[in-house]
Amino acid sequence: MSEFVIDWEREDRVGVAEALLCDGKSGGQIEAILDAAGARPLLLTRLAADKLAALPPACRSRLAYDLSSRTAFFGEVAAPSRLGPGIVCAGTSDLAVAREAARTLAFYGFDAPVLADVGVAGLWRLLERIERIREFSLVIAVAGMEGALFSVLGGLISAPLIALPTSNGYGVAAGGQAALTGALASCAPGVVTVNIDNGFGAACAALRILRCMVR
Amino acid sequence: MSEFVIDWEREDRVGVAEALLCDGKSGGQIEAILDAAGARPLLLTRLAADKLAALPPACRSRLAYDLSSRTAFFGEVAAPSRLGPGIVCAGTSDLAVAREAARTLAFYGFDAPVLADVGVAGLWRLLERIERIREFSLVIAVAGMEGALFSVLGGLISAPLIALPTSNGYGVAAGGQAALTGALASCAPGVVTVNIDNGFGAACAALRILRCMVR
Amino acid sequence: MSEFVIDWEREDRVGVAEALLCDGKSGGQIEAILDAAGARPLLLTRLAADKLAALPPACRSRLAYDLSSRTAFFGEVAAPSRLGPGIVCAGTSDLAVAREAARTLAFYGFDAPVLADVGVAGLWRLLERIERIREFSLVIAVAGMEGALFSVLGGLISAPLIALPTSNGYGVAAGGQAALTGALASCAPGVVTVNIDNGFGAACAALRILRCMVR
Amino acid sequence: MSEFVIDWEREDRVGVAEALLCDGKSGGQIEAILDAAGARPLLLTRLAADKLAALPPACRSRLAYDLSSRTAFFGEVAAPSRLGPGIVCAGTSDLAVAREAARTLAFYGFDAPVLADVGVAGLWRLLERIERIREFSLVIAVAGMEGALFSVLGGLISAPLIALPTSNGYGVAAGGQAALTGALASCAPGVVTVNIDNGFGAACAALRILRCMVR
Amino acid sequence: MSEFVIDWEREDRVGVAEALLCDGKSGGQIEAILDAAGARPLLLTRLAADKLAALPPACRSRLAYDLSSRTAFFGEVAAPSRLGPGIVCAGTSDLAVAREAARTLAFYGFDAPVLADVGVAGLWRLLERIERIREFSLVIAVAGMEGALFSVLGGLISAPLIALPTSNGYGVAAGGQAALTGALASCAPGVVTVNIDNGFGAACAALRILRCMVR
Amino acid sequence: MSEFVIDWEREDRVGVAEALLCDGKSGGQIEAILDAAGARPLLLTRLAADKLAALPPACRSRLAYDLSSRTAFFGEVAAPSRLGPGIVCAGTSDLAVAREAARTLAFYGFDAPVLADVGVAGLWRLLERIERIREFSLVIAVAGMEGALFSVLGGLISAPLIALPTSNGYGVAAGGQAALTGALASCAPGVVTVNIDNGFGAACAALRILRCMVR
Amino acid sequence: MSEFVIDWEREDRVGVAEALLCDGKSGGQIEAILDAAGARPLLLTRLAADKLAALPPACRSRLAYDLSSRTAFFGEVAAPSRLGPGIVCAGTSDLAVAREAARTLAFYGFDAPVLADVGVAGLWRLLERIERIREFSLVIAVAGMEGALFSVLGGLISAPLIALPTSNGYGVAAGGQAALTGALASCAPGVVTVNIDNGFGAACAALRILRCMVR
Amino acid sequence: MSEFVIDWEREDRVGVAEALLCDGKSGGQIEAILDAAGARPLLLTRLAADKLAALPPACRSRLAYDLSSRTAFFGEVAAPSRLGPGIVCAGTSDLAVAREAARTLAFYGFDAPVLADVGVAGLWRLLERIERIREFSLVIAVAGMEGALFSVLGGLISAPLIALPTSNGYGVAAGGQAALTGALASCAPGVVTVNIDNGFGAACAALRILRCMVR
Repeated sequence: MSEFVIDWEREDRVGVAEALLCDGKSGGQIEAILDAAGARPLLLTRLAADKLAALPPACRSRLAYDLSSRTAFFGEVAAPSRLGPGIVCAGTSDLAVAREAARTLAFYGFDAPVLADVGVAGLWRLLERIERIREFSLVIAVAGMEGALFSVLGGLISAPLIALPTSNGYGVAAGGQAALTGALASCAPGVVTVNIDNGFGAACAALRILRCMVR
Repeated sequence: MSEFVIDWEREDRVGVAEALLCDGKSGGQIEAILDAAGARPLLLTRLAADKLAALPPACRSRLAYDLSSRTAFFGEVAAPSRLGPGIVCAGTSDLAVAREAARTLAFYGFDAPVLADVGVAGLWRLLERIERIREFSLVIAVAGMEGALFSVLGGLISAPLIALPTSNGYGVAAGGQAALTGALASCAPGVVTVNIDNGFGAACAALRILRCMVR
Repeated sequence: MSEFVIDWEREDRVGVAEALLCDGKSGGQIEAILDAAGARPLLLTRLAADKLAALPPACRSRLAYDLSSRTAFFGEVAAPSRLGPGIVCAGTSDLAVAREAARTLAFYGFDAPVLADVGVAGLWRLLERIERIREFSLVIAVAGMEGALFSVLGGLISAPLIALPTSNGYGVAAGGQAALTGALASCAPGVVTVNIDNGFGAACAALRILRCMVR
Repeated sequence: MSEFVIDWEREDRVGVAEALLCDGKSGGQIEAILDAAGARPLLLTRLAADKLAALPPACRSRLAYDLSSRTAFFGEVAAPSRLGPGIVCAGTSDLAVAREAARTLAFYGFDAPVLADVGVAGLWRLLERIERIREFSLVIAVAGMEGALFSVLGGLISAPLIALPTSNGYGVAAGGQAALTGALASCAPGVVTVNIDNGFGAACAALRILRCMVR
Repeated sequence: MSEFVIDWEREDRVGVAEALLCDGKSGGQIEAILDAAGARPLLLTRLAADKLAALPPACRSRLAYDLSSRTAFFGEVAAPSRLGPGIVCAGTSDLAVAREAARTLAFYGFDAPVLADVGVAGLWRLLERIERIREFSLVIAVAGMEGALFSVLGGLISAPLIALPTSNGYGVAAGGQAALTGALASCAPGVVTVNIDNGFGAACAALRILRCMVR
Repeated sequence: MSEFVIDWEREDRVGVAEALLCDGKSGGQIEAILDAAGARPLLLTRLAADKLAALPPACRSRLAYDLSSRTAFFGEVAAPSRLGPGIVCAGTSDLAVAREAARTLAFYGFDAPVLADVGVAGLWRLLERIERIREFSLVIAVAGMEGALFSVLGGLISAPLIALPTSNGYGVAAGGQAALTGALASCAPGVVTVNIDNGFGAACAALRILRCMVR
Repeated sequence: MSEFVIDWEREDRVGVAEALLCDGKSGGQIEAILDAAGARPLLLTRLAADKLAALPPACRSRLAYDLSSRTAFFGEVAAPSRLGPGIVCAGTSDLAVAREAARTLAFYGFDAPVLADVGVAGLWRLLERIERIREFSLVIAVAGMEGALFSVLGGLISAPLIALPTSNGYGVAAGGQAALTGALASCAPGVVTVNIDNGFGAACAALRILRCMVR
Repeated sequence: MSEFVIDWEREDRVGVAEALLCDGKSGGQIEAILDAAGARPLLLTRLAADKLAALPPACRSRLAYDLSSRTAFFGEVAAPSRLGPGIVCAGTSDLAVAREAARTLAFYGFDAPVLADVGVAGLWRLLERIERIREFSLVIAVAGMEGALFSVLGGLISAPLIALPTSNGYGVAAGGQAALTGALASCAPGVVTVNIDNGFGAACAALRILRCMVR
């Protein structure tokens, strides 16, 4: 009996295919799963550069790797053809997580522009670009530290807003609990959140919404 | 200078009006805010029965109160005319929170049917109704305890899924942290969550999505 | 040996006198301390209305009680004669804590105007009054929930800013830990904070700063 | 006086012998304990590959090491001859912990088949194999993340069910607290749990039950 | 559509019927569920005395209530006829939880003797009765505070041992987290645990084991 | 079989008799235990005034109750005849816990003077009395809030110092965790601590030390 | 569109310029931001020595690096010309954080003398220097472990006192939560605090106060 | 001004000299402090082997280093001449912490025998040696995991008992919080505790007690 039981039907059922979370998996396990995938395209997340380097060349050659987001596309993936959510990002350190979301959306054909350095300590940076942000039918906000961006943005736009807290920060903000709490306790109505650093999850939530928009 | 600065423009800006969270406010403060509202309809949440009873009769007579959800409508509110999200509820103890969501949606004209007793310990109850649930373009799942419903449902439907964890439970589940963690750590892709017992917030998130569907 | 050793010299030493925190003290203990105070004025904090009512009339008649802040002045206290900090308050539920700070400042002769309902979910309310706020040489910001006000305000003014987190909120915000974390992890530079609901402490910190301004 | 006082009689008393938890012990301590063991077989757990490599060859040659579970058998251990529990495992990343349980059971003569990739996000994978799982008189369920598998499985089978939460996950799931909470707060009746990543402990609990079945 | 969807088939599927957890349910909801039950016997747990008193007499007359465990039997329940687990209880304050377990077992026909006051601070009390305890084929240990009983007992018997931590204690032990941690981190091999104060759950786990013993 | 198994030999074994912690016990249980005690003196702790009032008069008449410490002596207890530890107490709100310790010591024949209001915010109060404190061969320090008294005192005296953190405080200090942490993390060498509000435990620790001094 | 949107106007608005927190940023990102800065001086914080070493020589040559505080000045920075706060430091291990504060103040032209080894376990070290400390118009206190220094110092001086808790410590003090709690729960009136290890933030708070002193 | 202000008088004042905690100090700082010590003996704790190796040979040659406890004696230290406490140690992994305590006591002239492998899972190991343990006038108990040893031992001996929790363990026991909680919540009367892994602190507490015994 094969050890790996991939949920290949997941895309039909929930709109997104099973992705391969590489954290916690050995190189051998990753290779075996890619073998099982055959011709089916697959998204790999949290693939560290040294784990990638240790894969056999034949395997590696079929992966389109992006270092900053630590994601890889396995197999043929078409270029994004539709406009997806806007991704509004508080600080430079949050960009890696923002890009995991953007790459996941790209895998599914959506282009998601990233607007960087929109932290609320310099509010003008947000206000200056708010009209641009209001044009998106859906927004993912990415922030570490105290996550005040979620509340401010939530009070300024009417589109669905997905908070994506990151683990950037130190002291009480270390690990992302402060940003997550900022999202959950937000005084702005209707902000929803995903787990800390879960760029993949935020993108999947966006896909669920995007697909019911175009229905 | 008037002490209360209501954000009357919020509905134009973010799609939902400012609601009056009665918890932590005195009867006098509630009364003063209702006076300021004048002819504008207002949603009151977390209005305990004894706080309601202590309001002056003239004030009380303009409130349409619902005991189970502890919400009240102030002013004229039309009956719901459009179908909103389906609300899937794990246990009887979670119904009060589910109804806060349903009442908030009703205030904005959406009818949100509640499907009760869909806890995963009796999985057939969910599977038996899954086709019905799949008909909704948006689902709010309400659960306390460990919140396993969020993951199971998230793996069965492709519509946007908003987890609404409740504080029902004891021991490690007391206060709702277990259900919230279950939503955030869910292995199903694209589940989003709101704060514990935040039926109002889940409804507002649903309104953000519903409105961009009909645009 | 008398049981109560009041630190009467504290005002000379640190600029504020010892106050009488009534929480956790019996009516008899409060009475004994007031007897020991004699002609010296004393500030009482967290004095619940029913504890006040149980004090002997002779004792009660020397107390100027304020219900909303649960504070009392014992002895002769002059009316405020100097302008102190501005107190910027996010929500109606935070007013009781804001008033504990204002009353403490009044006890020491400073008038501290409270600007209410400046929550960031309706950002215009803050922006509309920002010039007024910038006129204060010192600001105390009061907020519960996620405390995003601290970061936004901290990025807009250059005066010293003391965050005063409150316990208002539910779910992850219950008890004030979320607002406190929001203050500590703030992305705005130079925000300082005091303990949750510590209106007295925020006022004392303000007094330390105000006194070195006028030196 | 010898420093190590091994509890050799533990197997007679509680049905399982004292195992050697290598984490936190130096190579010298491990060697000394193996010397003291003499001809008695011993199970070593959490033996990292580099700690093994640093042991003297004579010592190493008596160890049958399994890399994936980081366990070793010292001395002669017979092949498993009886059917033990079924081990149902949610994700590939949980396999290492599952195998620690399986190896412990093998050390005591029980064969424990591992059914991999039965996560509830693809419920069909569980439902498709539920009849197979129902044939076991005892089941160990292994899951990280939110641990929803424990509740779903607990509602589908009547055999004793031991939850074995793992530390796989990130954000709020990092370290395994989310999966543990999922097991403890489970809405399915009669689920019991052991500590996070405690494959050895889950196996010992299974041995206690298996032995009273065959009595 | 009836609001309550009771999982009547649960007993066939998992060996225990759905019980009615009265905490968090209104009197009206309890009454409606009992009406739906009709002639089927039902176990009610966490039924506070004043909630019982508020039920209509007709309803109350069909309930056999036990004050100390706050449980009630609805309908005809036969007297226990088989010997179940021994319940070993650390302190007098833990008896209420121990009795919830005993009553649940009685509902299913098992007699579970309670051995009280076996706290390890007076070890002789445990050692004096250890032979008696060893006669049980299954043991539930009930303890609050630090839960050291779980480890000591786990090292002395070979039967399956279910730890049932209680919320008795103060300071760091308040709420039961200390006792729960004591069970999970136990140095005795093969101790399993359930949620804090979950006498019902410990009994259900015992039922799962007892039933596979008699198969 | 009698339900209550009192550890009457505890005093011989560990130097202190089993005390009766009344919290969590019903009036009936307390009565039954006092009946079992017969002529043996017994210390009752955490006996609330209303629980005392509900005991039968015959039972109550044999109890010497102290309201401030919520302790009672059952049976004949001689007046203290030897000097025990000094009890140094930070604030008026900590006196109840200090008195639980003093009463426990009195039950065993030791007189323990309480020095009140020695909080470090008014350091002179401590320095003024430090010579008096240095005369004690053993000191119990009682403090809530941040517990800085433990460190300051620990750096000034060479006698054994037992920290007794209390639950007095609000915000992050609520429940006593801050004071406990202050004791455990103290920079003064050799400070030991007991559980929050555990006046009985601090006294028992003192008794262990006092007895080996007089041996 | 350039990715980095630096808040160059921050100094005008809040009195301190945006600093470059190097933790969590790649060498490439740091280089790009320095390029964007051009001739503007910039403060870099948390710049690890190996990250510095990996920057291109041209970039490195424009940085004045200080190893102990892990800060660097980019561009021309004048020598401090005014007296700033006194920095009172509990232990040698806290010096690195103290120096981050001192370097930040130096970047803005203030000289901030560091008084080391003033831990309260040796109280004479503080008392001996208290007159010197009282000469400062503003004090930053730096401490790890339990942070008792904040309370003792807060009771001895009347100047504004900013607590700067550090992550030095082990066990319950590991990570700095104990010192932070000690600051927040302090019994001394008017102590304010910043996040753990936030030397930069403490300095910015000092700058806000210093600037309103000289106005 | 010299940066290091050693508290040389601490031994006169509190009975133990200031020790040099090497964790968090650079090699240069350690060297400078040793230089300042001159002829005075000094105890160094938590000195990692690689930090020792990096010290200059002249400095290293004056240090008597013990690898297992990571302690060093600087200067002339006489051999222990008096019997100190017995150190009872639960597991092999706890020995390093036990030895930090023993080395600290040796530095002050006390011999403290270590009794290893006395974990309560094999209770006979403790009972077999209980008479030996009862001969000590003072006992330090060292345990990780759940720390049940503290309660069992506390119920068997009347001597002062200092609990020394260690960070050994995994899952909920990782970091030592479980063992610490076990000590604080202990049902045995009069157990006191120190911080996690604080062998130095436990020894200092023992020294305080030992010295008042011999007075």
